[in-house]
Amino acid sequence: MRMTPLPSVMKAAVLGEPGQIRVRELPVPEPGPEDVLVQVCRASLCGTDLKIRSRKFFKNDGPRADTFVPGHEYAGVVVAVGSTVDEFGIGDRVVTEAHRGCMRCANCLHGKYTDCLNYGIRAKGHRTQGMTVNGGFAEYALNHVSTLYRLPENVSFDAGVVLTTVGTVMHAFDVLADLVVGARVAVLGPGPIGLLAVQVAKQLGAEFVTLTGTRESRLALGESFGADLALNVRDGDAVSRIRAATGGHGMDVVLECSGAPSAVDDALAMAKRGGRVVLVGFFDEPVTSDLNRAVMNGITIHTVRGEGTGSLARAVSLASQGRIDTKSLVTHHFSLDAVSEAFDTYAERRGDALKVMLDVSPISAGA
Amino acid sequence: MRMTPLPSVMKAAVLGEPGQIRVRELPVPEPGPEDVLVQVCRASLCGTDLKIRSRKFFKNDGPRADTFVPGHEYAGVVVAVGSTVDEFGIGDRVVTEAHRGCMRCANCLHGKYTDCLNYGIRAKGHRTQGMTVNGGFAEYALNHVSTLYRLPENVSFDAGVVLTTVGTVMHAFDVLADLVVGARVAVLGPGPIGLLAVQVAKQLGAEFVTLTGTRESRLALGESFGADLALNVRDGDAVSRIRAATGGHGMDVVLECSGAPSAVDDALAMAKRGGRVVLVGFFDEPVTSDLNRAVMNGITIHTVRGEGTGSLARAVSLASQGRIDTKSLVTHHFSLDAVSEAFDTYAERRGDALKVMLDVSPISAGA
Amino acid sequence: MRMTPLPSVMKAAVLGEPGQIRVRELPVPEPGPEDVLVQVCRASLCGTDLKIRSRKFFKNDGPRADTFVPGHEYAGVVVAVGSTVDEFGIGDRVVTEAHRGCMRCANCLHGKYTDCLNYGIRAKGHRTQGMTVNGGFAEYALNHVSTLYRLPENVSFDAGVVLTTVGTVMHAFDVLADLVVGARVAVLGPGPIGLLAVQVAKQLGAEFVTLTGTRESRLALGESFGADLALNVRDGDAVSRIRAATGGHGMDVVLECSGAPSAVDDALAMAKRGGRVVLVGFFDEPVTSDLNRAVMNGITIHTVRGEGTGSLARAVSLASQGRIDTKSLVTHHFSLDAVSEAFDTYAERRGDALKVMLDVSPISAGA
Amino acid sequence: MRMTPLPSVMKAAVLGEPGQIRVRELPVPEPGPEDVLVQVCRASLCGTDLKIRSRKFFKNDGPRADTFVPGHEYAGVVVAVGSTVDEFGIGDRVVTEAHRGCMRCANCLHGKYTDCLNYGIRAKGHRTQGMTVNGGFAEYALNHVSTLYRLPENVSFDAGVVLTTVGTVMHAFDVLADLVVGARVAVLGPGPIGLLAVQVAKQLGAEFVTLTGTRESRLALGESFGADLALNVRDGDAVSRIRAATGGHGMDVVLECSGAPSAVDDALAMAKRGGRVVLVGFFDEPVTSDLNRAVMNGITIHTVRGEGTGSLARAVSLASQGRIDTKSLVTHHFSLDAVSEAFDTYAERRGDALKVMLDVSPISAGA
Repeated sequence: MRMTPLPSVMKAAVLGEPGQIRVRELPVPEPGPEDVLVQVCRASLCGTDLKIRSRKFFKNDGPRADTFVPGHEYAGVVVAVGSTVDEFGIGDRVVTEAHRGCMRCANCLHGKYTDCLNYGIRAKGHRTQGMTVNGGFAEYALNHVSTLYRLPENVSFDAGVVLTTVGTVMHAFDVLADLVVGARVAVLGPGPIGLLAVQVAKQLGAEFVTLTGTRESRLALGESFGADLALNVRDGDAVSRIRAATGGHGMDVVLECSGAPSAVDDALAMAKRGGRVVLVGFFDEPVTSDLNRAVMNGITIHTVRGEGTGSLARAVSLASQGRIDTKSLVTHHFSLDAVSEAFDTYAERRGDALKVMLDVSPISAGA
Repeated sequence: MRMTPLPSVMKAAVLGEPGQIRVRELPVPEPGPEDVLVQVCRASLCGTDLKIRSRKFFKNDGPRADTFVPGHEYAGVVVAVGSTVDEFGIGDRVVTEAHRGCMRCANCLHGKYTDCLNYGIRAKGHRTQGMTVNGGFAEYALNHVSTLYRLPENVSFDAGVVLTTVGTVMHAFDVLADLVVGARVAVLGPGPIGLLAVQVAKQLGAEFVTLTGTRESRLALGESFGADLALNVRDGDAVSRIRAATGGHGMDVVLECSGAPSAVDDALAMAKRGGRVVLVGFFDEPVTSDLNRAVMNGITIHTVRGEGTGSLARAVSLASQGRIDTKSLVTHHFSLDAVSEAFDTYAERRGDALKVMLDVSPISAGA
Repeated sequence: MRMTPLPSVMKAAVLGEPGQIRVRELPVPEPGPEDVLVQVCRASLCGTDLKIRSRKFFKNDGPRADTFVPGHEYAGVVVAVGSTVDEFGIGDRVVTEAHRGCMRCANCLHGKYTDCLNYGIRAKGHRTQGMTVNGGFAEYALNHVSTLYRLPENVSFDAGVVLTTVGTVMHAFDVLADLVVGARVAVLGPGPIGLLAVQVAKQLGAEFVTLTGTRESRLALGESFGADLALNVRDGDAVSRIRAATGGHGMDVVLECSGAPSAVDDALAMAKRGGRVVLVGFFDEPVTSDLNRAVMNGITIHTVRGEGTGSLARAVSLASQGRIDTKSLVTHHFSLDAVSEAFDTYAERRGDALKVMLDVSPISAGA
Repeated sequence: MRMTPLPSVMKAAVLGEPGQIRVRELPVPEPGPEDVLVQVCRASLCGTDLKIRSRKFFKNDGPRADTFVPGHEYAGVVVAVGSTVDEFGIGDRVVTEAHRGCMRCANCLHGKYTDCLNYGIRAKGHRTQGMTVNGGFAEYALNHVSTLYRLPENVSFDAGVVLTTVGTVMHAFDVLADLVVGARVAVLGPGPIGLLAVQVAKQLGAEFVTLTGTRESRLALGESFGADLALNVRDGDAVSRIRAATGGHGMDVVLECSGAPSAVDDALAMAKRGGRVVLVGFFDEPVTSDLNRAVMNGITIHTVRGEGTGSLARAVSLASQGRIDTKSLVTHHFSLDAVSEAFDTYAERRGDALKVMLDVSPISAGA
């Protein structure tokens, strides 16, 4: 194992009572043969982190709270590598994806490791950063080598952290197994995922991109990112207006990024005959929708959970080409010590919070 | 145009008042340059025909009732061909598929003609037999050459008629773009589609096929067709029992063939992580389901409307190999004159009706 | 049929003795029900046109020379439409693709109309502009409605004509059924197709694009179009240098656009394990290559003939977004009367000819 | 680690001088946490084993000969499992596939582990049984848990061993991402792979299967396995006869299983427009072929190396359904002590050897 001299303890955010998160000292983890130890520079919060703080994320008891470190969106610097790792060297700037599959079940062997059949079984090799193993809301984080991607010099740590979300968006397009050039793409929900989806769609060559939501400020941001039509669903029938804008034919691809159950019906109604709907948002409750519309119109419904195979690498590449604006999405910065306030800010959308960032370690270079 | 001597008029079933169907005389249609005139020997009824009789199928007024001939499942003998047709000759035994696309819209050009963007526009070339143009509940029917397939000698007309349904089942597997060998396949709904799906799945090499429904007689038929596990959903938790039979992993492919809205939730719950659900049945009402289960488990939801590209040809091939039992599905025969009784029998499932057949013309050979 | 007043005769380039092309008068063609009559503004020459002039293109006798009009790359203005056509109106600016399938064979029904099984059989509906039916080296050309795409106002006729070639390039990426973002793409052969492939690859988000060839001026053009590495194969081992630039792994996608038989071996040697090679160029002679390399490394070899399904629409969209430079490729302009000189210029690459353009009709607007 | 009492040494075939193979004692290997120790019952020889014996298989020096155990086709009984393994238990009858990827490179993460970018690097987790790590020509063999499949009771060890080859055939169909029902399939080369390909094609529902080769006895075997047309290429133009049998259209799928360079041209000439060629055989020399035929006809050339993702599981399933005859392919049995004679028999095709089997350990049950 090659490494720089490291402290034995580190500051880390851990769970407390349900709904609580606090900072304490934990031992710095030691990399196994296939691991990389990352000094975390920046980390950001995602909706899943809120469910983790409230414990709703965990089916049974969940992990022991006082040593469990959440955080699956982070970037940092390599400080130690396991004995078999030559993919990265000390000092490399890296960004993480959440999922490492067991790589021995039928799904992992087929390249679908985000659908690992041994989900949560650490002994068999599965890990999800910040969900089933400790994550990045700490000074140091341990990653399997396959979950890291080198951050090019022209991509800052702030941008790198947001790339995990871009990876999810990229995966939503990847499951379509198709070029996007010339397509009509509807995006529902102007949260971080939706706003990045607008950007990625345009970069991939989509001809006509719509964005629907309820917050004017975010719809305006979507327009600045290239949305050709941004509609407030409170202003009346967004579906009709979108179909009208396509000469009645409907959209080729519809990305549901809102998680609002009512949005599925809108998504199906926006899609053209033979179109494709991708569900990217998580739903908190059962969804009622006119699925017969899908049947009668040959619409396929894809789903996306996490950033999936190779999608983060693509996100990094697009960012290194200077083609993604992540800066406008980062609305807040907090120190790791203020992690609880960061969570509250994000949960309550204080100051119209989009991406809330933790500045974990001082950044010596490249930011 | 080459043809045998033909009468100028024929018997045909036409619509009457909503809910009525009756027999009258109509002119024998004349083939255009790309058409084939078929003397119909056998035709069968499908759920869509009931909606056509009740007029619920049509969005607006629908066609003029007294000259509209339903029927999209039929087989017969070629009696005349258009000027450009050399694919078929007089006397060929043929079976039909329902859909002919406009072949000039973006969907048709991509091979998705069942999703034709010019659906119902006859002038642009689109036709759906028995739905947007006259169909096969008559002594003669006009087909575009691309909608016919030669029936091998060892396949009877009765079997041929059912092959349209086998084509739909084949298409349900075709959209998966995958071999089915070794797969676990769940079939929901033991109607004709579901019962044929069990057979096709086994022929394609599925390792473990389940069938769920409510009618014991049909479940028993499913077992005789090779279902490894046939469960009556009234006997308790079919989903749990099916998951248990797969070691908890769930089914690779789930075909929803019942059209019951509650079945979608069952389908999602039966599917394994990364599994695929295919909606084959039509739903009469909105569907409420735990779509989040699809998102969290990377489940894709495909849909199938009609027999789709090349699927009927595959069905014919499988039948000619002697690998499909359609005979057990044909429960009733009526003459064309008794078409109204045939409809009632099918609608009310008299005598546990599965496929109800019209014997239209006397069959001189090959039946 | 709706139309503007039209002359009854037109100037058209027709074949003469093998190797000869000349201008004469021909009747202006009349559109059938599904046709559109285009007043040709600009047309360009392609390598296939040279084979047509020499008659090597035709297997047997080929068409009657003195009424056969070549030309499959052209753009113009709609002046008449058939009785069923509402997709276009008089005055619309349009660009053409070459292929219209019979739309009744198994391949056409599957969306593979460039592989039509009734190729060349006009009676069954197949046409290839300028190859099996008259094309665009004339004042007026007849097109099936499905072969035309509306040219946006911000795309000139010159650019429009080159879009047919961009369509071929787009199709080369389309057959991969994949996003190109972050990929390493090698392009062999810096002719018009190769030079456009460099541009399209970069626009689709390719991370690293190489171009190899023998002409320095064209390699320089490739670099100006965004190639990250342009190598003259005469300067030594281009394959080794390209593999070295990828850390030894090789390229994800290799587009063979040169038509040089020796290039296939280079293409296979450049590809990474599991990579994909696309053959876009035509070969004049048998190809000797180390196909075992493909087998041992899981390399798939795709082929592209023509612009394929939907690819021209995508090319038009990319151009309308201002993301393709076609201007630098147009090196020569000739009047229709000088068609013979235009052919000679292109055949002999006079003045380093890339795309040679015929200015057929005066352009009143939009150029 | 759970295990039955095991001896400390075992008999194993190891390499000697190039071209030599002999039996010696070696230590019984010990399973790591993800490993399974298999008591080998039966093993069979493959063409690759001959290249390994001659050392031509290895690029540089290859492994140390006197401890290297070849053999990648074998079946046996689980006698010990690593600490994390619960997929198998002591006494389970299993069959092996050759490849375990590193599961951390881009290809492995995408499910293409037979194209692992870390091929041969044991430290990073890659292993190929009997090629880069010790294999199955010994009393005990060590396997990664992901390379084993449970052998159903009704499948004998002899049959199980041949299933590795069936897996390769299955993979050749799997790369097509399509149903095979109703397809026309040409198989070139009536060796074990080709003969199994005929069987699998028929089981998958292929309508018309051809087999070409030079040995009458093997062609006759192919016919007994269901080939609709078996042609000796020495009897004249097999390509023409096969095209004629398809009405001139050609075959949908062509599997090149001979490894004869001249066969590629035949394969391309047999394929229909838009058809697919799969190269399954290895070539010992460069291949000259009319690749322009592929370009002009939209033919894709796929390649298959090894049994690929999930294909062995499918082979096992098909065998357990009683749908594959492997018995007729096993022509010879030798004891492990006679391994050298077994190699000679196979190399020289003594007694028309097809599959040559080593009976390694006495079989207590299930054979």
